[in-house]
Amino acid sequence: MASYKPSPRSKIIRSPQRAHYDKKTLYQVLDAGYLCHATYLFEGAPVIVPTAYVRIDDHIYLHGAANNRLLNSLAAQNQACVAVTHLDGLVLARSAFHHSFNYRSAVIFGTPGVVEAPQEKETILQRFTEQVLPGRWAEVRPPSAKELQATRVVGIKIEEASVKIRSGGPVDDEADYGLPVWAGVLPLQQTVGQPLADKQIRQGIKISDAVTNMVKK
Amino acid sequence: MASYKPSPRSKIIRSPQRAHYDKKTLYQVLDAGYLCHATYLFEGAPVIVPTAYVRIDDHIYLHGAANNRLLNSLAAQNQACVAVTHLDGLVLARSAFHHSFNYRSAVIFGTPGVVEAPQEKETILQRFTEQVLPGRWAEVRPPSAKELQATRVVGIKIEEASVKIRSGGPVDDEADYGLPVWAGVLPLQQTVGQPLADKQIRQGIKISDAVTNMVKK
Repeated sequence: MASYKPSPRSKIIRSPQRAHYDKKTLYQVLDAGYLCHATYLFEGAPVIVPTAYVRIDDHIYLHGAANNRLLNSLAAQNQACVAVTHLDGLVLARSAFHHSFNYRSAVIFGTPGVVEAPQEKETILQRFTEQVLPGRWAEVRPPSAKELQATRVVGIKIEEASVKIRSGGPVDDEADYGLPVWAGVLPLQQTVGQPLADKQIRQGIKISDAVTNMVKK
Repeated sequence: MASYKPSPRSKIIRSPQRAHYDKKTLYQVLDAGYLCHATYLFEGAPVIVPTAYVRIDDHIYLHGAANNRLLNSLAAQNQACVAVTHLDGLVLARSAFHHSFNYRSAVIFGTPGVVEAPQEKETILQRFTEQVLPGRWAEVRPPSAKELQATRVVGIKIEEASVKIRSGGPVDDEADYGLPVWAGVLPLQQTVGQPLADKQIRQGIKISDAVTNMVKK
């Protein structure tokens, strides 16, 4: 299956020309980030929580402490919804009404399940680290058996998904193109600053390759 | 009231030393952004949607088209949950286990209500624009009566809120400080790129002050 079939909950109604349901586009949006928002029901009402994620094949994985309420609530639910959003720019139109954002937004739905096997947990945690900072896993102390046990990993099988992407310049009303107003796009992006060494860094320890490569990007 | 009283749904259990419930800190986190994630129930299950917001006093406002499903669902609910998250850095520890993010995260709960009065709607829309790009409102064509009518504005009175902030360097296990691993923080921030003029920009129109000021920041 190369595309998801939208159901009433995932079908994009507004600006359907910006909707995508294919896995290729979905994976591109998911793989461009590492912070998502997930939701769980607390006494019947939804609560939203930001958390790290990684995609592996057709699963999104979340992790946290063993007593993490989001993870334990998700594990007890039979459906999960996770959103990943990248803000790409401010779209400045000639009218207030047509101001907008450029963005890439993915919303996925699926069945959550706890990952129990320590080896599988470790592989997933490795992917978490490598997704954020490629090469970092090999530089650091890997998790101990106790740390693996203290970590809850929940996988969500993506069963339904929608992506919405807006790019490009403003779309103004025909009559407004004649107005003496500057219009265009202010691009936004997440940038990496200069690395700050830990105060307790041992003398003689050089900055690592993984960090150097990230700063170069 | 200078602080919110945490209830079981908003009380931060994990790392309570990073929790804040005072309005000053909450407003700082909310006012530092303009994209939130909100949630509504669709056939009993939560759906998350990214959307623009603005805070005015003790309300969060969302807006969209009159047929916007999030807004109409919220208006029909008696509780809303909205999350605002800023990612500030990658926290690189000596062990995989202690890797983390620096972030500022706010989660608010409150009662949603539709704003009906056109004048109040216009004032709120002005704040939306000014929050993203100060000075822009005065540069553009203001909304017509028809555009105001086509815009749904929902206000959420903040009745409960929690903020969680992580900053600073990694916290490693005592035994790991001796490892030959570089540790520290990679700061992340959202930066504004060079403005791209609309292809249909009229000859002789200079870039506006609001845009110039935003790029300078």
